[in-house]
Amino acid sequence: MLQQNTRLFSFVAGKSGRWQITQSTAVVGEPLPPAARLEIIEGPPPAAGSVWTLSGVTSNERYVNREEKIQLVGKQASLGRPQATHGAVIPIRKNARWWGLTQQERREIFEERSHHTAIGLKYLPAIARRLHHCRDLAIPQSFDFITLFDFAKADSNAFDDLLAALRTTEEWKYIDREVDIRMIKE
Amino acid sequence: MLQQNTRLFSFVAGKSGRWQITQSTAVVGEPLPPAARLEIIEGPPPAAGSVWTLSGVTSNERYVNREEKIQLVGKQASLGRPQATHGAVIPIRKNARWWGLTQQERREIFEERSHHTAIGLKYLPAIARRLHHCRDLAIPQSFDFITLFDFAKADSNAFDDLLAALRTTEEWKYIDREVDIRMIKE
Repeated sequence: MLQQNTRLFSFVAGKSGRWQITQSTAVVGEPLPPAARLEIIEGPPPAAGSVWTLSGVTSNERYVNREEKIQLVGKQASLGRPQATHGAVIPIRKNARWWGLTQQERREIFEERSHHTAIGLKYLPAIARRLHHCRDLAIPQSFDFITLFDFAKADSNAFDDLLAALRTTEEWKYIDREVDIRMIKE
Repeated sequence: MLQQNTRLFSFVAGKSGRWQITQSTAVVGEPLPPAARLEIIEGPPPAAGSVWTLSGVTSNERYVNREEKIQLVGKQASLGRPQATHGAVIPIRKNARWWGLTQQERREIFEERSHHTAIGLKYLPAIARRLHHCRDLAIPQSFDFITLFDFAKADSNAFDDLLAALRTTEEWKYIDREVDIRMIKE
């Protein structure tokens, strides 16, 4: 068996999996094929038997400054809390114009003008999240990022508010594909 | 056949290849096994028949600002010029302390204090280069980055000066493995 990057995670949609998919909405661009359930695994996806798979690696932060990182680390919760029976997987792709910007220009749009981290911080620790990077994998992916979220049922409206706030930002103008997959754990 | 990321390149050392390896020096950490020749291919490495292989993807720039990017694009040459018969492949790995820094802290070390891009600019267009990222591939790599360089024989001393300048910087204190592979094309 090939060794694998311990930061690699795969999202496997099909007939089985711990999460029941309740809704899958194409926010921008093409949808993903409908599937009943989702499993999130460490490592590469299985070779067959899924409706769709997505993979990504967790990595070093690209945009937060030290003050923001301290705030995030101080406030954020881990995925998998017993009460976090509601979840979402949101894969996004950014356009070529975004990737042609310099780091500093992307940071200015991401935080100084779109307040991405500042908005996210308001929903901690209720909403737990993990970001996965897909763009620089050897096998080309349909998305640049996958974010996994989980939260208690009571925080579902807060989660919708978080997404609504992010989707009105200047950063979101660079997103050319986004699918919003909601799910519950029984 | 699996689709592949068009930005993926592999460095395949063994008995064959367009480049003859003339020297391979472990600058920091473990060496790479000795090999006679090197081939650089688009896509993943072959499953067998090599002494060692390294893979990486080209990606968006992480550190340069707009002014530096304009200067780089204006001055840099492409790999593969007929006179560029001399080459180097320099894989490096940075330590956990580097990856725990924020982007801004890394930028400050990389450019404001180590002048990485400013040093590199002095050697353009004589030295052509391409940077490949390895850290976020699904199959774990022994290095975080691979840089490929080529240049005319007459610029070999300039290339040594460039490396000597970079290796005295604060940025280089975060490098915990570096192999310097020199080669010529007949």
